[in-house]
Amino acid sequence: MQTMGLSRLVLVNPQRYPDADAYAMAAGASSILDAARIAASLDEALAGAALAIGLSARPREFAGTVLPVRAAMHEAMRYVASGEVALVFGTEMSGLSNAELSRCQVVATIPAVPDLGSLNLAAAVQVAAYELRVAAHGDAVWTAPAFEPATQDEIERLFAQGERALIALDFLRPAQPKRLLARLRRLFSRARLEKEEVNILRGILARIEERVEAGWRKP
Amino acid sequence: MQTMGLSRLVLVNPQRYPDADAYAMAAGASSILDAARIAASLDEALAGAALAIGLSARPREFAGTVLPVRAAMHEAMRYVASGEVALVFGTEMSGLSNAELSRCQVVATIPAVPDLGSLNLAAAVQVAAYELRVAAHGDAVWTAPAFEPATQDEIERLFAQGERALIALDFLRPAQPKRLLARLRRLFSRARLEKEEVNILRGILARIEERVEAGWRKP
Repeated sequence: MQTMGLSRLVLVNPQRYPDADAYAMAAGASSILDAARIAASLDEALAGAALAIGLSARPREFAGTVLPVRAAMHEAMRYVASGEVALVFGTEMSGLSNAELSRCQVVATIPAVPDLGSLNLAAAVQVAAYELRVAAHGDAVWTAPAFEPATQDEIERLFAQGERALIALDFLRPAQPKRLLARLRRLFSRARLEKEEVNILRGILARIEERVEAGWRKP
Repeated sequence: MQTMGLSRLVLVNPQRYPDADAYAMAAGASSILDAARIAASLDEALAGAALAIGLSARPREFAGTVLPVRAAMHEAMRYVASGEVALVFGTEMSGLSNAELSRCQVVATIPAVPDLGSLNLAAAVQVAAYELRVAAHGDAVWTAPAFEPATQDEIERLFAQGERALIALDFLRPAQPKRLLARLRRLFSRARLEKEEVNILRGILARIEERVEAGWRKP
């Protein structure tokens, strides 16, 4: 919950609270357990909510609106501007009962292999919280540091030097079709060369040309 | 893994294997542990893979292609037709090292609250496996049983009867603007009435009209 940006936990009629095991497993997120609200019933827990979304893996006869969890979390985001939204999870053993699910306007289901049982509770909470975060904030993540890209003329000089080096190595015959060069162009084009990489490659090529001229003797 | 349709687990240099705790936590998925392959190194584990996607929460200097986990799993699906794809996870304590991540062509990151630490390993595996399943199979889920929808003429007869009942109740004044009826139309339009629901509502309305005519006496 904490890593996904959620903070308000409501526990309905918990067997034990506070519980040492729960704190041990919460790692750095004990503040969420500290602030948990205890409700005597699901109705009490949901009293202030404008939209309740129940997570359920099993088909139910009177389920009403059933959505994949991704669409359900987008529906949640449509509501948060005007009212509180509750995500409702059942117990580890049996999930939500029909009576509990009847309090939910939307049933959210996590796509899974049919007939293989459902996710455990923590896994289901994780997926729902993740989808809610992506629905709320998009999924932009850190990007790799940007290195300066090589320019077209730098890359062409690299290819020209590479061609000379391959000829010097007697690997490329100038008279023969240049499929090899086309393949190498394709490879380096896909890689989107950076300036520094062009310099490194040209350094290697220059060394090859030197060594070939020197007859491959050690300097 | 099993619920999301994955079956091939490779453990790199595990501290204990097989491990009773692992089996206890695997619930119905012990066959995945039974079939796990043990590798002495990450290179050995990845030997047959055409694409390795490393999960990492932390920015790295030489990370190369960094994608949100959703986009990374779509990238995985582009590869599975032609080669094996590996999802690479680090240890619970420290994640993937830079050396380990350098074996991965794609770094996948799970969107999260910045600076709040990363997901635990099981949670990260769950999210990645979920996104892979959605990328592979879409997120169609079970739909609620389809009840026969009411037709427009059935709904119009319901509204006409409702209007009569509200007038009989002296709740709706025929001479006044009918904003009330418009609001009720909006409500029932949003609900997309089913045939059986129309019948139930008309039954209720009929009973109201009866009772009003009888002067609200008990029958």
